[in-house]
Amino acid sequence: MVSTTSKFVAEMIGTMVLVLMGCGSAVIAGADGTTGVGLLGISFAFGLSVVAMAYAIGHISGCHINPAISIAMVAAGRMKIGEAVYYIVAQIIGAIVGAGILYVIFTNHPGAELGPWALGSNGWGTGYLDQYNTYAAFVAEFVFTFIFLLVILGSTSTKNIHGGFAGLAIGLSLILIHIVGIKITGVSVNPARSIGPAIFAGGAALSQIWLFIAAPVLGGVFAAFVYNLLIEKKEIA
Amino acid sequence: MVSTTSKFVAEMIGTMVLVLMGCGSAVIAGADGTTGVGLLGISFAFGLSVVAMAYAIGHISGCHINPAISIAMVAAGRMKIGEAVYYIVAQIIGAIVGAGILYVIFTNHPGAELGPWALGSNGWGTGYLDQYNTYAAFVAEFVFTFIFLLVILGSTSTKNIHGGFAGLAIGLSLILIHIVGIKITGVSVNPARSIGPAIFAGGAALSQIWLFIAAPVLGGVFAAFVYNLLIEKKEIA
Amino acid sequence: MVSTTSKFVAEMIGTMVLVLMGCGSAVIAGADGTTGVGLLGISFAFGLSVVAMAYAIGHISGCHINPAISIAMVAAGRMKIGEAVYYIVAQIIGAIVGAGILYVIFTNHPGAELGPWALGSNGWGTGYLDQYNTYAAFVAEFVFTFIFLLVILGSTSTKNIHGGFAGLAIGLSLILIHIVGIKITGVSVNPARSIGPAIFAGGAALSQIWLFIAAPVLGGVFAAFVYNLLIEKKEIA
Amino acid sequence: MVSTTSKFVAEMIGTMVLVLMGCGSAVIAGADGTTGVGLLGISFAFGLSVVAMAYAIGHISGCHINPAISIAMVAAGRMKIGEAVYYIVAQIIGAIVGAGILYVIFTNHPGAELGPWALGSNGWGTGYLDQYNTYAAFVAEFVFTFIFLLVILGSTSTKNIHGGFAGLAIGLSLILIHIVGIKITGVSVNPARSIGPAIFAGGAALSQIWLFIAAPVLGGVFAAFVYNLLIEKKEIA
Repeated sequence: MVSTTSKFVAEMIGTMVLVLMGCGSAVIAGADGTTGVGLLGISFAFGLSVVAMAYAIGHISGCHINPAISIAMVAAGRMKIGEAVYYIVAQIIGAIVGAGILYVIFTNHPGAELGPWALGSNGWGTGYLDQYNTYAAFVAEFVFTFIFLLVILGSTSTKNIHGGFAGLAIGLSLILIHIVGIKITGVSVNPARSIGPAIFAGGAALSQIWLFIAAPVLGGVFAAFVYNLLIEKKEIA
Repeated sequence: MVSTTSKFVAEMIGTMVLVLMGCGSAVIAGADGTTGVGLLGISFAFGLSVVAMAYAIGHISGCHINPAISIAMVAAGRMKIGEAVYYIVAQIIGAIVGAGILYVIFTNHPGAELGPWALGSNGWGTGYLDQYNTYAAFVAEFVFTFIFLLVILGSTSTKNIHGGFAGLAIGLSLILIHIVGIKITGVSVNPARSIGPAIFAGGAALSQIWLFIAAPVLGGVFAAFVYNLLIEKKEIA
Repeated sequence: MVSTTSKFVAEMIGTMVLVLMGCGSAVIAGADGTTGVGLLGISFAFGLSVVAMAYAIGHISGCHINPAISIAMVAAGRMKIGEAVYYIVAQIIGAIVGAGILYVIFTNHPGAELGPWALGSNGWGTGYLDQYNTYAAFVAEFVFTFIFLLVILGSTSTKNIHGGFAGLAIGLSLILIHIVGIKITGVSVNPARSIGPAIFAGGAALSQIWLFIAAPVLGGVFAAFVYNLLIEKKEIA
Repeated sequence: MVSTTSKFVAEMIGTMVLVLMGCGSAVIAGADGTTGVGLLGISFAFGLSVVAMAYAIGHISGCHINPAISIAMVAAGRMKIGEAVYYIVAQIIGAIVGAGILYVIFTNHPGAELGPWALGSNGWGTGYLDQYNTYAAFVAEFVFTFIFLLVILGSTSTKNIHGGFAGLAIGLSLILIHIVGIKITGVSVNPARSIGPAIFAGGAALSQIWLFIAAPVLGGVFAAFVYNLLIEKKEIA
């Protein structure tokens, strides 16, 4: 049996990588498609972080690296609540460490400027990308997390014989969600990923953090119920 | 045995995801490669929607999420016509729901403008992208769906020992088709994907819908015959 | 045993898809990264054509869809010369059909202009992209095909236990080769892929065709010898 | 047992491919996202070189093609030091050959200009991309190699049942690292990849080479200890 220490370290490092590399792609490499990696590059950075970590630590902790996933796993009856709390603590610590490393690297070059919603913070409304309103932001984060969890629950189901592809499918689905949603909220679908940069950014990034906790958790739990009650429930046809 | 309800819900949600995320990438993130995700990003969004859903619901319904696939599967002798009808109803409902969610999100930001062929509708002719004529649009949709179905029929064949890769290969082939064809028709190869946005867009998107039903269905059925009669037919060499 | 007719049809259609979709991405979607799919999109189109076909027809014909591969397979002792000739005929017919379909689609829109090296023809020298000279073009095509064949020979070796990944690895390596080499020759590494468009383009595309036959064939055969003599030769260490 | 000659040739050719194709994408195809392949394209070139080689030569030598990996494997107790030395010699020779082939191809076109940090050399400070300072460059290379090695150690662990995906996960994680880090140091995480071009570029590329040896080696060794002591150490929970 894998020790709880191993799982804690794995979840912490995994979330650190997701935040450092995902947010780092936006902050260091840039959202402009001509001179930087563009929105597509940033999308790949978030998704490939998950692919990389899924095959690096999936066999240790399952590679949740996202409190919304751990909570949805509890809702789906696949995880005990005590272990989920333990996972979530590790994820939040990892996210803060990741944002901290990004802060250290980024500020050591000429012209580094943090500004509002710094270090790849999620947000919405006046001054944030395409300025979607709170309602759109909430619906988007709820629906995107719902979709993300369906992929996770389906691809890792014991009924699915292609389980080896789960890490790839889940990571690619996070690329997909970023391609569509960056201009709305920067895409969270993961409370830890939002908390990390917001701690350093403060301001609106911190005051808007509630949405990036509430919407992903609700969307994930809703996916758990839909999956268990409507999709994988077996009957004699 | 998987219940028909499960299959219905799976096909409905899967098609919802394809339309919301595929069309959403164009509408929300934008076709400009400098400020948006570009044509390449949109292509990835459509294809990765299929990859994501293939590993999420493939073990439930086979993940058709496309009436042209269900009809071609009947033509290839791999599906009963009654089940195909059931699938197609779910797919069309899902596509409309997906376009509806996109409508709700997109219209909640300043400067949202629907215009003709709104919400990622397919089309052709004067005013639509590179203004290819009806003949080119029909040939393109026919040939692209033919290619798409060859990949589906071959990669999911019981003779193919690498079946686990089917979801990946099929999704990547949809990326390919979008890379080549977006400027012609926006790429349908899927009547449900065209019907969803057209319901909301009306106008030319709705009056041109016939081509995005006829060409994909004919191309898919032709692929079924070519595959069964010429490619997988076994003889003593 | 798979019939020779099935293999012939599979190779013909597979090469048709490669030429139509690979060259089509350049001709229809465009090499500009802001308004088109860019060089990266074109690279994906060629490589994903191979991934798609590998899982569609790999279990039928092995999915060579490239005379340089069939000839290298003979040199590596993995194919009989008679079958290779049969394959190559199918590949060249398929490439011409693919270029023909592209011609039909592309010319049916306002502003369609063929120009020199039309329909995605390979070339080099004055007037062709970055105007590399004959020497650079030959070295590039030789080295790129050498690398391409190493991936093919290694990933499909009976000693390689991860054979299911071969189609993916080979297709991704073709993306790689295009990313690096498009500005030199447009990238061939495949005589059939060069012959198809050149038949329609004529002019320099046709008079330069010799290099896209000679360099890929020599590079591929060299890879076969290096692989068999230096890489997979087993000894007691 | 695979002969040491085979392993030597495999590591040499693999590193040659990584340097030629990775650096070649920057030098030949260009970092501008509109007219070239952009930073995202360059990132794919480095990562896909690893994917291609992993499935081509992984069954021969394990496909390290990077001295930091071989040294970390020694630190992790997975390789003998004598074999690592042998591997590293092959990797450095291969890197120099790769840079040499790139030099030959690139200089054979009009307007070819080498300039400082030529042929895709790594660097930092005044005049190098976003001009990050030495401290940021060291931290970045250390952390990126740490992450890279975690993916390698985890995905190739005998405890990981999805070993077939290792080549893909490792290559995709190198794409990720390049997406984030190109503007800092051009991304090395591999002493051989830095030495190859620096030999030809001279100047700052050569005088800065110490960092691209020290940081990746230290980061890789640190990952080996973290992985063995904290992540895969099994206890009764």
